[in-house]
Amino acid sequence: MATQGQFITCKAAVAWEANKPLVIEDVQVAPPQAGEVRVKILFTALCHTDAYTWSGKDPEGLFPCILGHEAAGIVESVGEGVTEVQPGDHVIPCYQAECRECKSCKSGKTNLCGKVRAATGVGIMMNDRKTRFSIKGKPIYHFMGTSTFSQYTVVHDVSVAKIDPTAPLEKVCLLGCGVPTGLGAVWNTAKVEAGSIVAIFGLGTIGLAVAEGAKAAGASRIIGIDIDRKKFDRAKDFGVTEFVNPKEHDKPIQQLLMDLTDGGVDYSFECIGNVSVMRAALECCHKGWGTSVIVGVAASGQEISTRPFQLVTGRVWKGTAFGGFKSRSQVPLLVDKYLKEVGSSMHACMLSAFET
Amino acid sequence: MATQGQFITCKAAVAWEANKPLVIEDVQVAPPQAGEVRVKILFTALCHTDAYTWSGKDPEGLFPCILGHEAAGIVESVGEGVTEVQPGDHVIPCYQAECRECKSCKSGKTNLCGKVRAATGVGIMMNDRKTRFSIKGKPIYHFMGTSTFSQYTVVHDVSVAKIDPTAPLEKVCLLGCGVPTGLGAVWNTAKVEAGSIVAIFGLGTIGLAVAEGAKAAGASRIIGIDIDRKKFDRAKDFGVTEFVNPKEHDKPIQQLLMDLTDGGVDYSFECIGNVSVMRAALECCHKGWGTSVIVGVAASGQEISTRPFQLVTGRVWKGTAFGGFKSRSQVPLLVDKYLKEVGSSMHACMLSAFET
Ligand SMILES: NC(=O)c1ccc[n+]([C@@H]2O[C@H](COP(=O)([O-])OP(=O)(O)OC[C@H]3O[C@@H](n4cnc5c(N)ncnc54)[C@H](O)[C@@H]3O)[C@@H](O)[C@H]2O)c1
Ligand SMILES: NC(=O)c1ccc[n+]([C@@H]2O[C@H](COP(=O)([O-])OP(=O)(O)OC[C@H]3O[C@@H](n4cnc5c(N)ncnc54)[C@H](O)[C@@H]3O)[C@@H](O)[C@H]2O)c1
Ligand SMILES: [Zn+2]
Ligand SMILES: [Zn+2]
Ligand SMILES: [Zn+2]
Ligand SMILES: [Zn+2]
Repeated sequence: MATQGQFITCKAAVAWEANKPLVIEDVQVAPPQAGEVRVKILFTALCHTDAYTWSGKDPEGLFPCILGHEAAGIVESVGEGVTEVQPGDHVIPCYQAECRECKSCKSGKTNLCGKVRAATGVGIMMNDRKTRFSIKGKPIYHFMGTSTFSQYTVVHDVSVAKIDPTAPLEKVCLLGCGVPTGLGAVWNTAKVEAGSIVAIFGLGTIGLAVAEGAKAAGASRIIGIDIDRKKFDRAKDFGVTEFVNPKEHDKPIQQLLMDLTDGGVDYSFECIGNVSVMRAALECCHKGWGTSVIVGVAASGQEISTRPFQLVTGRVWKGTAFGGFKSRSQVPLLVDKYLKEVGSSMHACMLSAFET
Repeated sequence: MATQGQFITCKAAVAWEANKPLVIEDVQVAPPQAGEVRVKILFTALCHTDAYTWSGKDPEGLFPCILGHEAAGIVESVGEGVTEVQPGDHVIPCYQAECRECKSCKSGKTNLCGKVRAATGVGIMMNDRKTRFSIKGKPIYHFMGTSTFSQYTVVHDVSVAKIDPTAPLEKVCLLGCGVPTGLGAVWNTAKVEAGSIVAIFGLGTIGLAVAEGAKAAGASRIIGIDIDRKKFDRAKDFGVTEFVNPKEHDKPIQQLLMDLTDGGVDYSFECIGNVSVMRAALECCHKGWGTSVIVGVAASGQEISTRPFQLVTGRVWKGTAFGGFKSRSQVPLLVDKYLKEVGSSMHACMLSAFET
């Protein structure tokens, strides 16, 4: 290819400072070094985490940077030693890497690969601990190892999932964050069984994907909780069977849910990022077995709390990152699943609803 | 029997008031009513929970009462409708009932039977919501549905485990609380696998039973943490392989343990009842899979807290009551296990060490 080994100049939305509008700039994207992949991004979505870092509330946020982590594209070129993808492959960049070699990857117990974390956590690439983006020589930081708000980006080879080239990239880009997070919270982290009663706090993208996952798992009741009434109509399409607006009740929400469910729900999911709601989500679980999964990301420095008696009497408190999915291995399977089920109203509806 | 259907006058250690010495009194013990069993207590141990309620710190503690919940004895007589035990049976009273009929018992997911809780929680018997103990007509409250600091006690039939009559009651009385709690925390709640790294906070009775359970489960390292150096020698006999005294270090204990274990332990157990230690026990767990089990009972009103990020990155926070064992079904099996292994130094040592 003509561009291989060359700098590429392309458009990117640059966050120069916290909380200031992104600016479309001409950015120079360096060629991929050893173990790196340069990807032409065709579609990208916007997730809460981009907005959070952009807002300046994330103490680890670095500026100037290129945000974005929910996308799909085509490999433009690869660096030395990259064997699993080649130019022309359709890919989804994955903010959660999977190296298949580190202690975490080999444990069989978690998807939290640590291989490139030390670099992606500080906005640079592993190989030379520098960035691949620059504007007139000034380096621009990477974000989450993905930086998809750019026509071209460079990612580590352990952070890119090769997918079926027949998949519509404008839809499957959503399999880069929100949808797998919600589905996996249900299937991998909570392991919801058929017949379970499920409560979902927050009916944004993540909450709807949790509903979708709970419905597929055969939950008998899916209770959606949101302070925004408008969320309820669409949530019905995703399987939510009952709605509660905490603003319309005086009782603490955990008490209300316990009353509605003869002692508590089997599984609850916090999909907001609010530490008081996290507590309510735990405490509305049934004594003896109720399991609460934290999906929302709270603001820095905030803490969750409860009486330890809640746990001694059998409730379980968990959390999930990227729904527990191993990115490189499992994102392609989710794409295949989507392609197989695309005829069914369910998944088609899911992925369309998230287009914005 | 001569006593059947009659009041029995016997000795009991009565707690007249919080924090005042127990007084040995002549107590009248009424005959068992429908669904009740009167037991001649032959051996009883003393557990932390007795001392906690006695101290007056338990806001639900009721006085005057007869404490005690770790004991063994022989059935003296049974009330109407009791079929599973009869006079002469050797039994262990169980503060955690098992009715086999309620939602919890039938769930297959928990040992926390709720059948008689509403009565035992307020020091009375279900049938007439009165006590079976009195002194000169003045009612004396029951405690935990067991009240074993009496030569005779009355318990609900769902709260009594019939055991092998050849078992030495002076040893197996310990299977009424501490030992199953520790073993079950490891086997039922955490499900520790062979090769795991385990941390135990607090090396009292519960902590030693956890060590015993972890050793039996094949843990590769068992790290005992206590502020009392004296606990370390005996703990070796129970399988603890390494010791840490937090007082001898400046670093926070969670950091110290992460450094000692290349990123954290696989399982941790809090066996003290201290909410700051509960936090440390969670935070010393390995990212991605580390599971912390709260066994200790904190003082009323105290709360645990942590950053939700600890859970989002894969740690799991749980608790256990009576080690998750179903009392009537499983305590007899633990007695059988003890009888089978009594020749082996291990269990013999365990049960002897707890004699005081
Ligand atoms: N763990 C992970 O891997 C992961 C991945 C992606 C996103 N997230 C996090 O998930 C959370 C949700 O993301 P999203 O994109 O769905 O957000 P969103 O803003 O689209 O949805 C949040 C919903 O919660 C509702 N809400 C707000 N406060 C509420 C309250 N007190 N009670 C009830 N409902 C309330 C809002 O009305 C909204 O509908 C965010 O914190 C995000 O950072 C986590
Ligand atoms: N969950 C249950 O079903 C259940 C059942 C029985 C007992 N318990 C609880 O388990 C706990 C332990 O009971 P036990 O009988 O073993 O108590 P114990 O007093 O015999 O042992 C506690 C140990 O913790 C140590 N310790 C105290 N503070 C410490 C600190 N800050 N750091 C490290 N070590 C510290 C003490 O030196 C002691 O060795 C109690 O809270 C008890 O109420 C729970
Ligand atoms: Zn995201
Ligand atoms: Zn890895
Ligand atoms: Zn006890
Ligand atoms: Zn029951």
